[in-house]
Amino acid sequence: MGPPAAIEVTSETDTSGVTIPNPLTAPIKSNEIYGRRKRAPKSQWAVAAPADSLNFRHSKYEHRPKSKRWDHYITSEAMIRKGNSLKKAAKYLGRPGIISLGGGLPSSEYFPFEELSLKVPAVGHFSEAETRETGVVITAGKHDLAQDKSTFDIATAFNYGQGTGAAQLLRWITEHTELVHSPPYQDWRCTMSIGSTSALDMALRMLSRPGDMILSEEYTFSAAVETAAPLGVRVAGIPLDAEGLLPDAMDNILSTWDPHVRMARKPHVLYTVPTGQNPTGATQSAQRRKDIYRVCQKHDIYIIEDEPYYFLQMQPYTGPNSPDVPAPASHTEFLQSLVPSLLSMDTDGRVMRLDSFSKVLAPGSRIGWVTASEQIVTTYQKHADVSTQGPAGMSQLILFKLLEDHWGHSGYLDWLIHIRMQYTKRRDVILAACEKYLPRDIVSWKPPMAGMFHWLRFDFRKHPDYPGKSIETIEEEIFLRIIDHGALLMRGSWFYANAEDEHDTLFLRATYAAAPEEKIDEGIRRLGEAVREEFRLGKSDVNGSGKV
Amino acid sequence: MGPPAAIEVTSETDTSGVTIPNPLTAPIKSNEIYGRRKRAPKSQWAVAAPADSLNFRHSKYEHRPKSKRWDHYITSEAMIRKGNSLKKAAKYLGRPGIISLGGGLPSSEYFPFEELSLKVPAVGHFSEAETRETGVVITAGKHDLAQDKSTFDIATAFNYGQGTGAAQLLRWITEHTELVHSPPYQDWRCTMSIGSTSALDMALRMLSRPGDMILSEEYTFSAAVETAAPLGVRVAGIPLDAEGLLPDAMDNILSTWDPHVRMARKPHVLYTVPTGQNPTGATQSAQRRKDIYRVCQKHDIYIIEDEPYYFLQMQPYTGPNSPDVPAPASHTEFLQSLVPSLLSMDTDGRVMRLDSFSKVLAPGSRIGWVTASEQIVTTYQKHADVSTQGPAGMSQLILFKLLEDHWGHSGYLDWLIHIRMQYTKRRDVILAACEKYLPRDIVSWKPPMAGMFHWLRFDFRKHPDYPGKSIETIEEEIFLRIIDHGALLMRGSWFYANAEDEHDTLFLRATYAAAPEEKIDEGIRRLGEAVREEFRLGKSDVNGSGKV
Repeated sequence: MGPPAAIEVTSETDTSGVTIPNPLTAPIKSNEIYGRRKRAPKSQWAVAAPADSLNFRHSKYEHRPKSKRWDHYITSEAMIRKGNSLKKAAKYLGRPGIISLGGGLPSSEYFPFEELSLKVPAVGHFSEAETRETGVVITAGKHDLAQDKSTFDIATAFNYGQGTGAAQLLRWITEHTELVHSPPYQDWRCTMSIGSTSALDMALRMLSRPGDMILSEEYTFSAAVETAAPLGVRVAGIPLDAEGLLPDAMDNILSTWDPHVRMARKPHVLYTVPTGQNPTGATQSAQRRKDIYRVCQKHDIYIIEDEPYYFLQMQPYTGPNSPDVPAPASHTEFLQSLVPSLLSMDTDGRVMRLDSFSKVLAPGSRIGWVTASEQIVTTYQKHADVSTQGPAGMSQLILFKLLEDHWGHSGYLDWLIHIRMQYTKRRDVILAACEKYLPRDIVSWKPPMAGMFHWLRFDFRKHPDYPGKSIETIEEEIFLRIIDHGALLMRGSWFYANAEDEHDTLFLRATYAAAPEEKIDEGIRRLGEAVREEFRLGKSDVNGSGKV
Repeated sequence: MGPPAAIEVTSETDTSGVTIPNPLTAPIKSNEIYGRRKRAPKSQWAVAAPADSLNFRHSKYEHRPKSKRWDHYITSEAMIRKGNSLKKAAKYLGRPGIISLGGGLPSSEYFPFEELSLKVPAVGHFSEAETRETGVVITAGKHDLAQDKSTFDIATAFNYGQGTGAAQLLRWITEHTELVHSPPYQDWRCTMSIGSTSALDMALRMLSRPGDMILSEEYTFSAAVETAAPLGVRVAGIPLDAEGLLPDAMDNILSTWDPHVRMARKPHVLYTVPTGQNPTGATQSAQRRKDIYRVCQKHDIYIIEDEPYYFLQMQPYTGPNSPDVPAPASHTEFLQSLVPSLLSMDTDGRVMRLDSFSKVLAPGSRIGWVTASEQIVTTYQKHADVSTQGPAGMSQLILFKLLEDHWGHSGYLDWLIHIRMQYTKRRDVILAACEKYLPRDIVSWKPPMAGMFHWLRFDFRKHPDYPGKSIETIEEEIFLRIIDHGALLMRGSWFYANAEDEHDTLFLRATYAAAPEEKIDEGIRRLGEAVREEFRLGKSDVNGSGKV
């Protein structure tokens, strides 16, 4: 298979309204990613060879600032972790002709796998139906590397690897990161994770000690709270609106922080999901991100930017009766339509960005990656080497065959545009259903701009049992009533950043990601029924079924 | 594909000298594994469905003792960990006809994978050459489950899953564990890990607090020491011989433990690699294991049994000029030839056994499993749900297709016998080379019975620079001299359980697992050259090259 078509991105044609801070002065140009790759010794593709994303960056970074050091935040646990010392013996393996009786790596002779094949979509023919018709079969052999057929193969990928993941896939990931974010400081690096939940666990062990509080949106990803709690780390919630967490509120919380009242020292870590936040669906605008970054600089806050939904940014919502906005006409237009990441404005190196393939390829790869300054990435890698290890080599080989050998960067951007249009369609389906079935005086919402979640606000004051019953009790009754009507939504209280805080809002979270479109419509119809019954309203005029 | 051939194991024909404690009274019989499986609702195969190994055990366990509780050892971190609360909403998904707008799972419509195929060995034709000739192609489709073609498919495996791993593969793993170990207490369970390094990290976070010491062999797997150290956990080394750690020495260490001298409370965790220990290659005999278990009972020690090399037990070593011992003639003979595990004698439920596919299938699967009492396994699973998650679904599907759909239990046992014979051959090659090339007055060894490692003892007292130089300095000089001669071995001091202890032994570790056989011979020849030079002996009579 020849090199994939070059990507069309150029920096000269930026016509978007968004000014991306610290634009590349020597950006990745069209036609250049594959041609401009540094030639590297073949030894970097070998079994368990060390991988360094530094080798895979294209632009020059010498004129950019160096990142700040984070010694004052890094825990002693992380500071003293040496990584796996046996891997240091690998440095002697470069000697010509050396025979290794050193590392306890099994011989690939005993991997019972001769060939791995995948049927995957051809670029531009991405639907399931098209893939069945016109899908392409891509194959990895056992010894492709030794036979010079590919840089990656079963013998290599299925053996042990480094905590970074294999250089073969790390190169692609680094290039993709540079293309999309172009971090504005010198010493940024990438390393793979086994998924962002694990990455958060490892980040907290690197940056927090028991008794600490970290900052997050006041409704936040519950697994993050549940990952932090056993480490003795609590979450201080920051109020948010449809554009995500409020910088002034954050500034105020930090400026007035009283350790005696909070029973924790002043926080130094912000955990945020800037795009399509879970559960609220809120997406921070470019200006909002700048303001948040500025508050973080003011209080020296380290930022964990968790961005699983970054490429689930959708087309603008035009309402039920207006024509759709056409798909991005080029890769340039697509990339410029994306809200700039915190990483892309991170002149200090104070952002650890968590990316994941879970929402855009498949969660079952358990492959994500971390982008941060060299100090942070090195610390992370050492931890991976003595705990998680890198992602499964089987998954790495599968993604490599798809992303590097088949689609290339260009085909992947096409795929991301496809996903964008699919989620736009789904989002529009749920919004149309909500317009149709839900009583607007009880339930209100903002159209989500990104992600998987539609966040429905309920006016609990209109509930017949209010104020006799608490918000949480009313929430539970609504939740169970909806189940009785045959639909499942998630309770907003499950996402409290801090369950001990007072809350005077009642939300339910619906997702439009999972169910087929006609089921989404029917699910929301059932929701409408349940809400009318629970709030003792009359039956809906629309599709009123006998079942109430 | 029809059900695989039944396995031939029967309990009636135990003719080995080893008395397995607590033998099964209702063992898994021949021809029965597939036929005896409980019928389970199809819902257990669904995306992210909860999996419980309890559903997959065959024998009756009611008459066996219940495990002890470990509340007195479990850390508060582990005790308060709730797992991922959102997964609890899954219980409502069983309602007929319910439409889920709940879980944020992506639709498999957007997984760009239509089919996954593997070319793998047919049972009994396991070599690489045979696999190229007669290998079988096995295929997983995207929607095999919905189409009733299989219980596992791309749509399911590539989505999110539970921390336990998927029921489809967990069933196979549970049955395999029962077949090999038949744990002698009631409430044993299995759950998948992402590999034993991660499992150890998680076990230590469950069982140790900063400042603790754990017990291990005085030479031990360095990554274990390096995983423990950042958690504030140090390792107390126990002397060992060719049959592994010495129970009396362990008893003595515990009985005379002085917290003030050791600066740690009395240990309550033993980390041991009973079979083919890394780095010493020592294998505990059945009697040795019983004695160790008894000491652990006496001092209420919880045991982490790390067994990556369990199925690298080899045929007896007969020496260079004697005929080889023929391969096991049946599965029964094979299973009976294995040293019984600590798990198989664990009447208290005090063993957490770590198994791994890394050494017998491929490290790149990143799939292992934990077997322990329900309390420990539940605690482990909750941790996985908010950190590592289960193993990559891509790997799980690959192993499922091979182990469940293709080989079955019977074919896998055949494969393990194949691996056993291959490692026997390799071990014999390195032993023959050592006999041939090494000066026996300087270097001595015991033939390894299991694992990947050959542990070479050097009589440092015969080194010309002794006692002027320290053992570690002499070790380094030997190590570097060997590299100069074109071979790489590992330094014994890298495996000190506790670098602060005094050591009066000097070892190097060689592996026969990785290099081709002719390279093993040449590597040992170079080692012999280097040692003669380093110890200023005359040239060897054997294959004396001009190069010295």
